[in-house]
Amino acid sequence: MVGMADYVNEGKSYERDMTYIPDRITAEPGRSQDPHGHDKQPAEIEAPTWQAEPGRYRLVAARACPWANRSIIVRELLGLQDVISLGTPGPTHDQDSWTFDLDPGGVDPVLGIPRLKDAYEKRFPGYPRGITVPAIVEEASGEVVTNDFPWITHDLFFEWKDHHKEGAPDLWPEDRREEMEQVMRRIFTEVNNGVYRCGFAGSQEAYDEAYDRLWVAMDWLEERLADRRFLMGEAITEADVRLFTTLVRFDPVYHGHFKCNRNKLTEMPNLWGYARDLFQTPGFGDTVDFGQIKDHYYKVHTDVNPSGIVPKGPDLSGWTTDPGRAHLG
Amino acid sequence: MVGMADYVNEGKSYERDMTYIPDRITAEPGRSQDPHGHDKQPAEIEAPTWQAEPGRYRLVAARACPWANRSIIVRELLGLQDVISLGTPGPTHDQDSWTFDLDPGGVDPVLGIPRLKDAYEKRFPGYPRGITVPAIVEEASGEVVTNDFPWITHDLFFEWKDHHKEGAPDLWPEDRREEMEQVMRRIFTEVNNGVYRCGFAGSQEAYDEAYDRLWVAMDWLEERLADRRFLMGEAITEADVRLFTTLVRFDPVYHGHFKCNRNKLTEMPNLWGYARDLFQTPGFGDTVDFGQIKDHYYKVHTDVNPSGIVPKGPDLSGWTTDPGRAHLG
Repeated sequence: MVGMADYVNEGKSYERDMTYIPDRITAEPGRSQDPHGHDKQPAEIEAPTWQAEPGRYRLVAARACPWANRSIIVRELLGLQDVISLGTPGPTHDQDSWTFDLDPGGVDPVLGIPRLKDAYEKRFPGYPRGITVPAIVEEASGEVVTNDFPWITHDLFFEWKDHHKEGAPDLWPEDRREEMEQVMRRIFTEVNNGVYRCGFAGSQEAYDEAYDRLWVAMDWLEERLADRRFLMGEAITEADVRLFTTLVRFDPVYHGHFKCNRNKLTEMPNLWGYARDLFQTPGFGDTVDFGQIKDHYYKVHTDVNPSGIVPKGPDLSGWTTDPGRAHLG
Repeated sequence: MVGMADYVNEGKSYERDMTYIPDRITAEPGRSQDPHGHDKQPAEIEAPTWQAEPGRYRLVAARACPWANRSIIVRELLGLQDVISLGTPGPTHDQDSWTFDLDPGGVDPVLGIPRLKDAYEKRFPGYPRGITVPAIVEEASGEVVTNDFPWITHDLFFEWKDHHKEGAPDLWPEDRREEMEQVMRRIFTEVNNGVYRCGFAGSQEAYDEAYDRLWVAMDWLEERLADRRFLMGEAITEADVRLFTTLVRFDPVYHGHFKCNRNKLTEMPNLWGYARDLFQTPGFGDTVDFGQIKDHYYKVHTDVNPSGIVPKGPDLSGWTTDPGRAHLG
């Protein structure tokens, strides 16, 4: 994701613009395969739907960005790498767009464009909102299909089931669904967004409140993970993916840059063990590029870090140590 | 201490202006009682000397500032509280001067001035350098005597011996003197100043180099303190005072604000035990005001922290836990 222009609005709390391109990619037109709907949305879909077809779409997702990182992880976990291609913009977008500056010639090798904005403009000339990742682009037309990140991972699971690898994990377990939605909502508002609320607070009061809210949630998670190996029990779910992308950025970025500094993640025994457990699971740690993560936040948010200098720390060697969580299931 | 105006010079490494008012307060005119001289200075003193006299001087030292904190600690350790009075400017000086904004009416109750600059100007109209703490001011004339911080603590020990409390510690032990001077020099250049070199680096290259230098020194100290309770052995010396003031600010400020973030102090077992051991010794922790420390750095350095927002963390409850160092002597 990316907020363009200024991140900090003086005197104000940070609010994320949650208006995205609502299109969905589905197994059948106008209808979701998810019997429950996500976030209380009905299975009938009002927005335009596109057919789920192998080889038709490209997921554009910067490794630096937590919201994009989610989609990369889910694509890996479900074994969709040969079904949906992946384009990866570099970590330091400009005011205008994420760019393919890491690719040869500065151009995405499949889409042939230097800037993700080109795919947005192709479909919506004069597109007025932020150019965000993750986005899904139709390869043939070069047009953006959707950037609605919670639906992207939801639909990778429910709408692409025919193409999942054998033994793909059940990321949305039927029997835990209601509780999982609650957990994910709390993680979204209090943690995924909570760190941004701290970092982009426009006043001391807004920050203080954001900090307290964040740590109430972190303490809740620390306790929840005392006797559960993963958030919903013994198996990895979408909720874990959503929490992981914030936890893996916590000490390198949020602790210092966003002033989420009551404790380091490494000082929260259950969360730290849990985060390492996921990190060492294929599809998680292998999608993480700490260098890109730090470059993104420290270089892009010049109103928080005017020098653009990127910290050399923290020491990351702990990530590969034994999580000590196997006994939990 | 305080550097006025901009802290970060683009493209440049940080260099501290080390030109201070060279006057000394001594037991006899023109001559030091220190048989060794400090930093290879002879016992004969070229600069003007002032007579060490109880009740004549006021130490002006902001609790926020590490260089000033040194002098407050030494005054306490030596029991000079009734001999030299203490004025304490608030944590957030302006471009011009430290101010007595915490005192009733915003005026130092003894000197009767709102700004430390007034004492500098009284003696040197148009004083061209930074208005720094610690400074010693003659109470009767209201004129600054000296702000040469390494000499201030040196002279509190050697020149005020007749006024030390009974059983005052030997902060400059004769038999460890040469090694102690070496240790203190390394602590000054690599640690006390090393954290500022990280925080005020004007380029990524300057920062990277500063970070590496700092952590070489931190690792050296961690190792040195493995089998020594204090830096010079079983007793507290001036070297410990000088290291402590940086360590106590490490996690609250230097780790995040100055990007000294390879590890928290709490992650360095020997240094963390050592720092707590000192913190719990009368004269150390009781001179520390974490709120003032954080306010100072985060509010004053607007070129590092434009929002001026002060982090609520870190959790400081660990400072009062058992250091586990008593077995070292």
